[in-house]
Amino acid sequence: MDAAFTNRNPGSGDAPNMKLADLPTPCLVLDRQKLQRNIRTMAGNLARHKVPLRPHMKTAKSVDVARLALLGQPGGITVSTLAEAEYFASHGIVDILYAVGITPAKLEQVTRLNASGANVTVITDDLLAAEAIAAHPANIKALIEIDCGEQRGGVLVAEDLITELANRLGSHLIGVMTHAGHSYQGRSIAEITRIAELERSHVVYAAQRLRTEGHGISIVSAGSSPTGRHAETMNGLTEFRAGVYMFGDLFQAEIDTHARDSIALTVLTSVIGRPSGRLLVDAGALALSKDRSTEASPHDFGYGLVLDVQCEPALGNAIVRKAYQEHGVVELDPTSPIAAPVGTRLRILPNHACLTAAAHDRYYVVDGSDDVVAVWPRMNGW
Amino acid sequence: MDAAFTNRNPGSGDAPNMKLADLPTPCLVLDRQKLQRNIRTMAGNLARHKVPLRPHMKTAKSVDVARLALLGQPGGITVSTLAEAEYFASHGIVDILYAVGITPAKLEQVTRLNASGANVTVITDDLLAAEAIAAHPANIKALIEIDCGEQRGGVLVAEDLITELANRLGSHLIGVMTHAGHSYQGRSIAEITRIAELERSHVVYAAQRLRTEGHGISIVSAGSSPTGRHAETMNGLTEFRAGVYMFGDLFQAEIDTHARDSIALTVLTSVIGRPSGRLLVDAGALALSKDRSTEASPHDFGYGLVLDVQCEPALGNAIVRKAYQEHGVVELDPTSPIAAPVGTRLRILPNHACLTAAAHDRYYVVDGSDDVVAVWPRMNGW
Repeated sequence: MDAAFTNRNPGSGDAPNMKLADLPTPCLVLDRQKLQRNIRTMAGNLARHKVPLRPHMKTAKSVDVARLALLGQPGGITVSTLAEAEYFASHGIVDILYAVGITPAKLEQVTRLNASGANVTVITDDLLAAEAIAAHPANIKALIEIDCGEQRGGVLVAEDLITELANRLGSHLIGVMTHAGHSYQGRSIAEITRIAELERSHVVYAAQRLRTEGHGISIVSAGSSPTGRHAETMNGLTEFRAGVYMFGDLFQAEIDTHARDSIALTVLTSVIGRPSGRLLVDAGALALSKDRSTEASPHDFGYGLVLDVQCEPALGNAIVRKAYQEHGVVELDPTSPIAAPVGTRLRILPNHACLTAAAHDRYYVVDGSDDVVAVWPRMNGW
Repeated sequence: MDAAFTNRNPGSGDAPNMKLADLPTPCLVLDRQKLQRNIRTMAGNLARHKVPLRPHMKTAKSVDVARLALLGQPGGITVSTLAEAEYFASHGIVDILYAVGITPAKLEQVTRLNASGANVTVITDDLLAAEAIAAHPANIKALIEIDCGEQRGGVLVAEDLITELANRLGSHLIGVMTHAGHSYQGRSIAEITRIAELERSHVVYAAQRLRTEGHGISIVSAGSSPTGRHAETMNGLTEFRAGVYMFGDLFQAEIDTHARDSIALTVLTSVIGRPSGRLLVDAGALALSKDRSTEASPHDFGYGLVLDVQCEPALGNAIVRKAYQEHGVVELDPTSPIAAPVGTRLRILPNHACLTAAAHDRYYVVDGSDDVVAVWPRMNGW
C-alpha cells in the first residue's frame, strides 16, 4: 500500500526554510500564536471557575496541539473516535474519555487499548450497552450520558432510566457527563450563558441524584466551547470539555464565542482561474468541507471567508460561494478589487474547523509571518 | 509518525472470513457486483458511440477500482489532484489527464512525475499559465479548457482568448476538453440530453476552430456521468470522461442518471443510541460528508437514506436528518417501525459518493452477500 501517497506522513518538528509560498496547495496553515492565545484564554476561563480542562481533541487530532492544550491541566483528553484514542495513547496520552455512546462490539477495542496501558472511559445512555459493560470480563469504567437539552444523546435527569442504568453498571459507574451542543444555537451571549447553566445544573443534579441512591460518582463532566467561554458558574463540575476553541472558526465568531481575528486555522489555496467577477481556487468541497453552518448566521460566509496570504482582509467580503470537489468559486467583493493572477495564494477562514481540518493530514505551522516553523501531522478516520 | 493510526494501510486483496458484522463502524462497503454492472453500463453506452472512456478516478481513488473501470478501454485515466496522479502512476497507470486548471508552481510536480515515467497532461484557460507551460524546460502537454455552459472554468468557444491561448502554448497544445457540470442541474432526461449536446458541440467546435487556425488537435475530450448516460451523439469526440457512474449515489438517482438499486457504495454504521422516534448512529458528518445535494431534488434524503445491513429498504423512508461530527440522527419512518437495539448495523446510501468516500481510507468489498471478499485501499488528500 502506498503510504507515501495516501498519507505523506510528515514527522513532527521543524520545517526549516519553508515559506507559505513554497507549500503545495490546498493545505492547512495553523497560526501558533493564535492557537496558544486561544488555549490560554480557555485555560484562564476555567481557572476562574477552578475547574480543570479535559480538552476535546476531535478538532485538532494532533499530539502537538494536544501537548499545548494540556499545559497546566491534569493530562486527560476527550476523543470522538477510538482511532483517536489509539493515536493519542500511542503518544503517551492515556487518560481518555471516549465521548460518543459505546456499542457492545466496541468494548473489545477499548479492552485492548486499556490492556496496553491506556485508561479509556466510555459513556452510555442505553441499558443494553450498560449490561454489556458490566458483563464484560475487563473492568471498563463508564459515565452515564445526560441530555441537558440538546436532544441528541443522553438520559433526562428526571427519568427513572438513570437509576436503571446506574444499577446495571454497578461498580463500573464512575460519573456523569453532558454536552450542551445546543449552545451552538445560542444567538446572544445571554442565551449561551443560560444554556451553560442548563448544562451545569443538569449534570450536577444527575450526580446528586445518583449519590443519593448510593452510587460513587467521582466525575461530573460537562462542556462545549461556547459554554466554556460564557458560563457564569461551574459549581459542582469536576472537569470541563471543549475542543473547537483551540482553532475557532467563522461560526464560533458569529455566535460571539471567538474573535474572528483569533481564528488560528486557515486553508492556503492558489488561484487556478479567473472567470469574470470571480476567482477559481484549488480549495473546494474536500479542502474546505461542505459545512454551511454560517448559513443562518448574521453573516453567511458561503464556504469560507477569503483573506490574502498574510491573513489580512485585503479582498473585503470575498467568500467562497460554491464548492465543487476540487474547485472553489470565490465571489469577489466589487468594492475591493484585487489583482489575483493565476498562482496567487490566498487563505480561507473555515466555517467549521472540525470538518475542514478532517480532509488534511498535516498542519503547516506559522508564527504570524510567512515562515513555516513546523509541520504537525494529524490523524483521521476510524 | 503513526501510519498505523492515521491510515491503517490495508493491503489490496482477499479478506477471508470477514463479514459485515465484524467490521469496525463507520466504514465504506462497496458492492462489487453493482460496481461491475455500472462499469459495464457506461462502457456499453460509450461503445455505441464508438468513443473510448478515460475514467475519472476522483470518486474511487483506488487502483483496484481503476483496473475494473479500464477493462476494454485504452488505459488512460482522469484525476482531480496531483496526489492522485502520483498514486496511480506508482501503480503503473501512467496516461493521466489532470483535469483541474494548472498553476505555474504545479508544473514542477508534473515534471517530476513525467520524468519518472508518467505521461501527465494538464489543462488551462489562462494566458499566464499557458506561458509558463510553454516556457518550462520540460515538454509538458496541455489541453485548452472550454466552457460549455457551466460557467466554472474554461474559455467560451467564440472568445479570441482561445486563439491567444493556442498561440502561447504552441507545440505544447494537443487538444481541448470540457465538462458539462451543469448536467447535474438537469431535471429531466430531455434536459440532460440537451446539455450533452452542448458539451459535445462546444468542444468539437473549439477543436475545429483551432485546426482551422493551424493547430494540431488530436484530443477532443468531454464528459460527465449524466451526459455519458443520456447523450444522443458523441460525434467528433476522441474520448469521454466520467467518474461517479462507477458508484452512483442518491443525487444521480434523483436526476435519472443512475438506478437507486444500482448504487454500489454504502456507509456501514452501528446504532449507538435510541432517542424517542429516532436512532443515533456512528456515521455523522465526517463519515457521510455534509453534502446536501438532494436538498432540491424530488426526494430530500437529508444526509442519506438508511437501509438494513442487507441493503434492503426495511426502514422505509428513514433518512439521516442531522449530521454532527460523529453522530448521525436517523429520523425513523413512522410507517416502518424497526427493532434496532444499540449495536444494530445499518447501511446508508450517500447523497454524493465522491465526498462521502473521501473521509475513508479503504473499501470493504462485498459481492451481494455479507461476506467481505476483499479490502481495497483508497488514497486521499493532496
